[in-house]
Amino acid sequence: MVGVIMKYISILGSTGSIGTQTLDVVREQSDKITVAAISGNNNIELLKSQIIEFNPKLCGVMDENNALKLKKLLPSHLNTEIVAGMEGLIAVAEYEKSDIVVTAVSGMIGLKPTAAAIKKGKTIALANKETLVTGGRYIMELSKEYNAPILPVDSEHSAIFQCLMANENEAIHKILLTASGGPFRGKNKEYLKSVTVEDALKHPSWSMGKKITIDSATLMNKGLEVIEAKFLFDIEPEQIEVVIHPQSIIHSGVEFVDHSTIAQLGHPDMRVPIQFALFYPTRMGNNYKSMSLFDIGTLTFEKPDLDTFRCLGLAFDALKVGGTMPAVLNASNEECVKLFLDKKISFLDIGNINEKIMLSHTSTDIDSIDTILQAEEWTRERIKQMI
Amino acid sequence: MVGVIMKYISILGSTGSIGTQTLDVVREQSDKITVAAISGNNNIELLKSQIIEFNPKLCGVMDENNALKLKKLLPSHLNTEIVAGMEGLIAVAEYEKSDIVVTAVSGMIGLKPTAAAIKKGKTIALANKETLVTGGRYIMELSKEYNAPILPVDSEHSAIFQCLMANENEAIHKILLTASGGPFRGKNKEYLKSVTVEDALKHPSWSMGKKITIDSATLMNKGLEVIEAKFLFDIEPEQIEVVIHPQSIIHSGVEFVDHSTIAQLGHPDMRVPIQFALFYPTRMGNNYKSMSLFDIGTLTFEKPDLDTFRCLGLAFDALKVGGTMPAVLNASNEECVKLFLDKKISFLDIGNINEKIMLSHTSTDIDSIDTILQAEEWTRERIKQMI
Repeated sequence: MVGVIMKYISILGSTGSIGTQTLDVVREQSDKITVAAISGNNNIELLKSQIIEFNPKLCGVMDENNALKLKKLLPSHLNTEIVAGMEGLIAVAEYEKSDIVVTAVSGMIGLKPTAAAIKKGKTIALANKETLVTGGRYIMELSKEYNAPILPVDSEHSAIFQCLMANENEAIHKILLTASGGPFRGKNKEYLKSVTVEDALKHPSWSMGKKITIDSATLMNKGLEVIEAKFLFDIEPEQIEVVIHPQSIIHSGVEFVDHSTIAQLGHPDMRVPIQFALFYPTRMGNNYKSMSLFDIGTLTFEKPDLDTFRCLGLAFDALKVGGTMPAVLNASNEECVKLFLDKKISFLDIGNINEKIMLSHTSTDIDSIDTILQAEEWTRERIKQMI
Repeated sequence: MVGVIMKYISILGSTGSIGTQTLDVVREQSDKITVAAISGNNNIELLKSQIIEFNPKLCGVMDENNALKLKKLLPSHLNTEIVAGMEGLIAVAEYEKSDIVVTAVSGMIGLKPTAAAIKKGKTIALANKETLVTGGRYIMELSKEYNAPILPVDSEHSAIFQCLMANENEAIHKILLTASGGPFRGKNKEYLKSVTVEDALKHPSWSMGKKITIDSATLMNKGLEVIEAKFLFDIEPEQIEVVIHPQSIIHSGVEFVDHSTIAQLGHPDMRVPIQFALFYPTRMGNNYKSMSLFDIGTLTFEKPDLDTFRCLGLAFDALKVGGTMPAVLNASNEECVKLFLDKKISFLDIGNINEKIMLSHTSTDIDSIDTILQAEEWTRERIKQMI
């Protein structure tokens, strides 16, 4: 085929929700994209079958024992090199042949490999929320310094990124960041006192991992996206308007200074923003579902209830403080979600503890990944003492 | 001011709805845009005050007697040259200093001056529907030949144009052309039998001229926009989906081949698309109303009822036949709306007569403006015989 240049990608976190959907996109576009390297952690059965199907040159496994197990499981004729630990993940991120690194790993673990990929000038298809939530300004400066573009994969940020294409000058008036509202939309604090883990895991529109589903129920997820949006699009927190939109059809929008608003819409399908990031700026044809506004019928919009959903307000607060504060909120929230999933704290405790932690932290400027990791460490220690 | 180049514009039809709103935009951006020439027809009082305020070099008046009257009305110190008839309008369109010609005149009268402006390589801010409805392919070829870009001013086509900016390749899957549905949305033929001129003139969301308001009630307006969209964006009729959207907040959208849909939204305010066309590709700040999805609350979407609103279906039929057929439908509709406003035919007769006329016409290819005008002439004669 004339004009088609094969793209090579590394996927950090190929066994997770975004990772497997990235591989779906690769399957559909296999004449244009090749998997060069992948990484995972616990799900070595899935890693094995991904290696057999996609034959990457490199596979990173965070856990050393799992790395050994995977080596034994693989058929002897395969020549995929297995690398272990954080070093292994960094090797996947830096893999020479890869043009694009999809950072689909969730949690703070994504920070170092993402920074490593940026320093090698790779294009980052960013799905790891923690990178910009904790490293915001520092990571964006790194991206500029090493000429490593960051393309968002999150449906909301991809929507905003696409909307910004409809603009030739720096002309954002405000960003409309939509949120489904989660399973507890419209509920008050009294109701939320007694909700269970099972209640919180029922998300109305997107099928996602457990951590992000709980974050979606507390609206912390939207808060983290607010922080990401601030750094990705270089805007003030006041320019970000969170809009509760239960149908999840409008994935976000931008109102420009001329008061023309551009929004991106579609069925909730993560393959759309993943494919967009992988082939940007080309829009590649696919066989996904076409949107029918007739079938959808009605789209509704509400103001978020910041009093009940405390975590969203905390995100704006953390942004205003800046420095290490967003990293502390993020780490505190990670711990709280774990404690909630383990049924050790209540749903409302998530917001309460996050707030207490923030109040007890003195923010400092971020000048390295280590500063971020120290703030994270401080937070986890603090929560241990508290519980 | 550094970097600001003054733009000069001609406005064909400066006393109409779009014309006066174009002058509103000029007032707000008077340090960046100057009115070089205007034209009107009957409202010479308004022309006079526009001349006094904007001091254009040239003013065209279609009616020769009105031109003479206007000359007498003007204060002697003003040096605006008054030119009359079609020649006068063409002089306004071709005025040497003008960079942009806003074709805000309504009806077939806009055709010759618009073609003249194109042949002078002017940028066309297109608000005259008839240009593309009747001259479609011919006008678009002329625009390419003379390197005269056509920027749509219609809110729907401006929306589509803006959405297409969010795309680097030829990748339209379908166009979502929204329509308010007019005052008779949801009504059946039985109801429409007895509606009056007064009923039809009550438009729910946009404040517009009489002709376009009736066209909005019959959905002929949307039909004409379908025809325009086909030629403006070089797509097949099957790629155009008309969506009834009573709130008139989504002004239209584009679904791309990757199944990502980009839409343009905002309060119904024609100054937004007018300003966009005048300053394209720069989005210029203004003090118009910011959109609040919270205040809007709900957006709804319905399929158009092509059986009741016959005119919309006729537009698709005319596009399929091609050649002079859209021009015939347009001329027939112009006559029918006049007859309806004069209470000589009923509301449903508009569609019925349009259909009869189309059935009795044999379409021919368009190779000149004269072919279009002859088809128009044929149509008007035919209707006279019929009524």
